[in-house]
Amino acid sequence: MRLATRKDGSRDGQLVILSPDGGHCAPAPVRTLQEAIEHWDVFAAEALAIDAFPDALKPDALAAPLPRAWQWLDGSAFESHGALMDKVLGITPEKTGRPLMYQGLSDRFYGPTDDIPMPDEALGIDFEGEYGVIVDNVPMGIDADAAMAHIRLVVQINDWSLRALAGPEMKTGFGWVQAKPACSMAPFAVTPGELGDQWRDGRVCMDLLVDWNGVRFGAANGAPMGFGFHELVAHAARTRHLPAGTVIGSGTVSNPDFREVGSSCIAERRGIEIVDEGAPRTAFMCFGDRVRMEARTEDGRTPFGAIDQRVIAYQGA
Amino acid sequence: MRLATRKDGSRDGQLVILSPDGGHCAPAPVRTLQEAIEHWDVFAAEALAIDAFPDALKPDALAAPLPRAWQWLDGSAFESHGALMDKVLGITPEKTGRPLMYQGLSDRFYGPTDDIPMPDEALGIDFEGEYGVIVDNVPMGIDADAAMAHIRLVVQINDWSLRALAGPEMKTGFGWVQAKPACSMAPFAVTPGELGDQWRDGRVCMDLLVDWNGVRFGAANGAPMGFGFHELVAHAARTRHLPAGTVIGSGTVSNPDFREVGSSCIAERRGIEIVDEGAPRTAFMCFGDRVRMEARTEDGRTPFGAIDQRVIAYQGA
Repeated sequence: MRLATRKDGSRDGQLVILSPDGGHCAPAPVRTLQEAIEHWDVFAAEALAIDAFPDALKPDALAAPLPRAWQWLDGSAFESHGALMDKVLGITPEKTGRPLMYQGLSDRFYGPTDDIPMPDEALGIDFEGEYGVIVDNVPMGIDADAAMAHIRLVVQINDWSLRALAGPEMKTGFGWVQAKPACSMAPFAVTPGELGDQWRDGRVCMDLLVDWNGVRFGAANGAPMGFGFHELVAHAARTRHLPAGTVIGSGTVSNPDFREVGSSCIAERRGIEIVDEGAPRTAFMCFGDRVRMEARTEDGRTPFGAIDQRVIAYQGA
Repeated sequence: MRLATRKDGSRDGQLVILSPDGGHCAPAPVRTLQEAIEHWDVFAAEALAIDAFPDALKPDALAAPLPRAWQWLDGSAFESHGALMDKVLGITPEKTGRPLMYQGLSDRFYGPTDDIPMPDEALGIDFEGEYGVIVDNVPMGIDADAAMAHIRLVVQINDWSLRALAGPEMKTGFGWVQAKPACSMAPFAVTPGELGDQWRDGRVCMDLLVDWNGVRFGAANGAPMGFGFHELVAHAARTRHLPAGTVIGSGTVSNPDFREVGSSCIAERRGIEIVDEGAPRTAFMCFGDRVRMEARTEDGRTPFGAIDQRVIAYQGA
């Protein structure tokens, strides 16, 4: 099953269910994805029974599948990325053997084609292509095996980052606030079953194709996550209940052979340049730049649809 | 004006307005504090016109005034506390001249007399007495002066902390997830005007009386905040819009003469012991322990009411 949220002027939009070919949709039996995830089993049974999809799907009229969430916890589960970023930021993090995770703002996820207003080009505007999952209610203290069953939907995310602020905030030990504006989501939230054998061991084993201003920038695969999403969920729930609709992110998708497959964020490419050439060559994004992100299965399907958006100058409220 | 939320079986409770003497209340013209803060001017005008308070106020039946929020950003604005905690944790944070702030879980604030289930005494269970503000919609990029007008309510918070997890998480640079379970709120959210001249320069200039198992532990005053709340709001909003209902915290209330006035968390007292005696003497909380927190004006009023609650063993979902 694949779900999308149609913009309808309301804060949370109108949930729709996609036809098998993705060209049409039907209004869901509940109004919002938040309502669906709070009563998932009932919702899923009703949604799966729908077999008429009367409306043409209009990609430009879609919000994020979950336009706001009660919680967004983002990991950094790809080791090849983490090690390089630490080097770039001059950080020597404590090695704990546990996932890295921070809590980011979740009251707003941009839709897949929304313009992204940023206050200042000098802040080091960067994209971060990643995967995420949406869970139903997860009790505190759950183990990773049991957490797997709470992963109801998989999503694709652009975790916008402001690199000039990231290093200084990280060094405070308090994590990121200013360095992490609102994220974007690709249009379709999909059940794990929809991904077939590209969903393995709590990982989205698909290439994430990232294009910056129309030029291929990366095609890293989600398989080499150091922790599966079920382990990230268990980590997040160690001392808290996770409310239904909590979004858990993988962190930037990255592969050890990043020199061949490319990167899912500019900071990683700059890190490679620093290691290989002594200094970064690639600048961060400018106003007007576009980024496109689309995950592809081995047989060429793109179940999440595409993020395709432009950074613009914030003009004030 | 003082507001409380009555438990009524729903997730967000029923907002009520207190009588001037605090003994009675009237149902608010909207159902929840979230609705009130989203349309504050309209709400405040209607609420101020209420002059009949038919219901006796039952303190045990109160939830947090805002039982869940879209965002909780907690500062660490008391320098005497920060410097000591860094020493205890073995952290040498970068000095930036800007407020320290992290994002914590906000889908649940415990009510003032709720039992607090914690998974393990060995995690270093600690209270943190602090003040907070609730803002209406704040546009990205606002300056501190303009931010002051968005502070609609002031609250008193217990930011529960698990110290055995705090240091290791801080050293990752990602901030706290497991070390920061849900917080508690004192029963009454009050308008800044209600505090009179105890609200000065964006600071709650009141003693925060903290009692641990019936013994006075601290009575630090909120005046020496290194940044006012308006400055914390502006810091938080630099690269994001703050949704109405965002809660911004001061961090543990602490005074430079903490050896005389005491502390608002156990970690600070342990820090003093480490500095003065070479090792901590005071243990963290045990299951069954109680903590009481109540802020007092110079003339003896307690506008926020009291947090008075007990830590219990989490028994599983």
